[in-house]
Amino acid sequence: MPAPTKIVLDESELPRAWYNVLADLPSPPPPVLHPGTHQPVGPDDLAPLFPMDLILQEVTTERYVEIPEEVLDVYRLWRPSPLYRAHRLEKALGTPAKIFYKYEGGSPAGSHKPNTAVPQAYYNAKAGVRRLTTETGAGQWGTALAFACSQYDLACEVWQVRASYDQKPYRKIMIETFGGTIHPSPSDLTAAGRAVLEKDPDSPGSLGIAISEAVEVAATNADTNYSLGSVLNHVLLHQTIIGEEVVAQFGKVGLTPDVLIGCTGGGSNFGGLAFPFLREKLAGRLDVTIRAVEPASCPSLTKGVYAYDFGDTAGMTPLMKMHTLGHDFIPDPIHAGGLRYHGMSPLLSHIYELGLIEAVAKTQRECFEAGVQFARTEGIVPAPEPTHALAACIDEALRCKESGEEKVILTALCGHGHLDLAAYGTYLAGELVDHELASDQVAAAVAGLPTVPA
Amino acid sequence: MPAPTKIVLDESELPRAWYNVLADLPSPPPPVLHPGTHQPVGPDDLAPLFPMDLILQEVTTERYVEIPEEVLDVYRLWRPSPLYRAHRLEKALGTPAKIFYKYEGGSPAGSHKPNTAVPQAYYNAKAGVRRLTTETGAGQWGTALAFACSQYDLACEVWQVRASYDQKPYRKIMIETFGGTIHPSPSDLTAAGRAVLEKDPDSPGSLGIAISEAVEVAATNADTNYSLGSVLNHVLLHQTIIGEEVVAQFGKVGLTPDVLIGCTGGGSNFGGLAFPFLREKLAGRLDVTIRAVEPASCPSLTKGVYAYDFGDTAGMTPLMKMHTLGHDFIPDPIHAGGLRYHGMSPLLSHIYELGLIEAVAKTQRECFEAGVQFARTEGIVPAPEPTHALAACIDEALRCKESGEEKVILTALCGHGHLDLAAYGTYLAGELVDHELASDQVAAAVAGLPTVPA
Repeated sequence: MPAPTKIVLDESELPRAWYNVLADLPSPPPPVLHPGTHQPVGPDDLAPLFPMDLILQEVTTERYVEIPEEVLDVYRLWRPSPLYRAHRLEKALGTPAKIFYKYEGGSPAGSHKPNTAVPQAYYNAKAGVRRLTTETGAGQWGTALAFACSQYDLACEVWQVRASYDQKPYRKIMIETFGGTIHPSPSDLTAAGRAVLEKDPDSPGSLGIAISEAVEVAATNADTNYSLGSVLNHVLLHQTIIGEEVVAQFGKVGLTPDVLIGCTGGGSNFGGLAFPFLREKLAGRLDVTIRAVEPASCPSLTKGVYAYDFGDTAGMTPLMKMHTLGHDFIPDPIHAGGLRYHGMSPLLSHIYELGLIEAVAKTQRECFEAGVQFARTEGIVPAPEPTHALAACIDEALRCKESGEEKVILTALCGHGHLDLAAYGTYLAGELVDHELASDQVAAAVAGLPTVPA
Repeated sequence: MPAPTKIVLDESELPRAWYNVLADLPSPPPPVLHPGTHQPVGPDDLAPLFPMDLILQEVTTERYVEIPEEVLDVYRLWRPSPLYRAHRLEKALGTPAKIFYKYEGGSPAGSHKPNTAVPQAYYNAKAGVRRLTTETGAGQWGTALAFACSQYDLACEVWQVRASYDQKPYRKIMIETFGGTIHPSPSDLTAAGRAVLEKDPDSPGSLGIAISEAVEVAATNADTNYSLGSVLNHVLLHQTIIGEEVVAQFGKVGLTPDVLIGCTGGGSNFGGLAFPFLREKLAGRLDVTIRAVEPASCPSLTKGVYAYDFGDTAGMTPLMKMHTLGHDFIPDPIHAGGLRYHGMSPLLSHIYELGLIEAVAKTQRECFEAGVQFARTEGIVPAPEPTHALAACIDEALRCKESGEEKVILTALCGHGHLDLAAYGTYLAGELVDHELASDQVAAAVAGLPTVPA
């Protein structure tokens, strides 16, 4: 028998708890502050938007949170997901390194997003909520939440940035196929949307505006809550199912990773893979380098500042201490829509400040080059987001080729690119425009950060 | 533990041989005839287009054909594929039936097509061929062959019907991402294409024209062969990996199917799932109803005649005895592009004539209705082709609800619909136009069949 291509787990081996890295960090992250009082927010501040189960998961320091049977039952539609050994990519690179990728593209939405959409929908349904609202940019998160809501008989209403709504009709159709309702944002359904349309009837919209609309509807309707697809602690908690499975999968073949590489937008895919390995590292059981990869056009970790900032453009959310480019920063329109966020998860930002992970930035041209090489060798067309991690994996594997080291490299292939093929078309036609954020642009972007008393 | 959602096989359980149903049929199918002499064709007639390994597989009566290690090695990228129990669909229907679906959407092309594209590319590479040509309509087959060629360092040149080339750019980009070259057909690269363009510079093309172009390039270049994605015996042979896996998967849970349902275009997906179960039925080990489902707009089995006909529109191929609507029949432009073929696999047609399988036809509106119900319950958006099988499965499950029978229903979910979302958009908008072929249309279509002496 040749070395296996896929390491698979049986359904009976599906992890039954999410891992909470807060339990093991040497210090807790700074508190989240109320935008008006600048005092730490409490559960009551969040209750208009989230069910109490999720609020408690946001702040708990318990090491493990049991996954409800009703959630496991839906997870089984695509989990456990396969861990692949990239035999063909290794061969093409001529590297002695062993490259493994955890593939999340087999999920209903085609990415890791349903890992948190499903429990979020479940806890909301359990709390008697009838409808969830959310925003979506390119549409990955909206698709995941629409699917999750279909599983628990919840209505799902998605505000999609109008520019994407008009340009990417496939995501809209997929959301509707799962039973979701989708509105272009700004819409005339909310005060926030109408205010924007009054000033500019042709506004292309922004994620910030879409968040404002979704939050407004949730806050003003008793039967409606709001749902977020990244950034928050409970979202990263749910995504640890990814890393927990990989720990078990590596256990089956007696290996451990020397280097773990993932892409970061809001941080949920990266945290989901990395945290269970960070637990092993903090406990002294594993020596692993953990590396975040972000786009050079939106480099919150490598070029942003660590400061209190708003989560949305309009400044309606609580203040979170995080790596940020400023809440009114508008990233260039790169194709990795899921990585275009001005801030980084406060939890991940804190871990970065503690020196437990490192970070690099990549231009989109080198990312698409890696994506095409991966497709031609491994047979999967990756979403633009994980091509960032793949580009950094290839760098590491080529360094191993130089040094002769047989490192075990682990990466997260967090989604397929079937609905992003237009971006590949642009790359293959040689028409890709690259964007790299310059230091003076960063300085200008962070100039508007809110002032928070120490 | 609840009943499993997925029955998975380990890579070590991957079947190591394809099953050849010709070995077990009570009588052989009628011979394939030379279009000029009307004499049975021999291996030499096919040698300009196919390598000898595939020609021998086309005619062999050996029961099993060993799968080369080099093919198994690529199969492992996505095989064994999961067998799902449709718990949620069953619940939504309120049926006592147990519905299982074999999912092929996890392959590099997103369908069952790579199961034959990979061995076809392998045997051609082994024979020293440097390039494969083929035609593609919607693009599924072209994608599969482009991927397969990337695995064996073969060039891949695809002629795509111009109407699809212009309307469905995503498939074109996916083919290019896998390294294939794609031309709109008719093209000025071939005599066949130029002849069409001379008469009609704006010709939207047809599958028949695209076949002529691909065959011409293969026939006139020594280093180039031609590859076909369905209809032929060796293609159906390769697809039996699907059914062989399901036999093993059912074995794990101690079940056998009472009803097996698959969609039929050229017949490769259906034959691939059905033939290993037909072996069990012919041997008296299994009592199973095997049902083919075809579109009401292209009903070759249920309304076509069983007669000698050409495989292509231009009448260049050998004559095959098959269920056909006539080689110059142009089906209505339904969204299930993979089911729009005037004929049915000669092997499957013969088996139908022997009374070993039954057939029904479905309109596309009831198919998309089934597809949407499936997506909302099971979390997978099916390609338009397998929604035909799903619609028939739902019929069967609802009959079980009436009768109280706990039948085990097995179906082939042969691909995902990520690149077919425009069709779902049309359905959800209530704009789907249905087509049902009337008897007088069939009579007119088969009037031009070639005359073959008895």
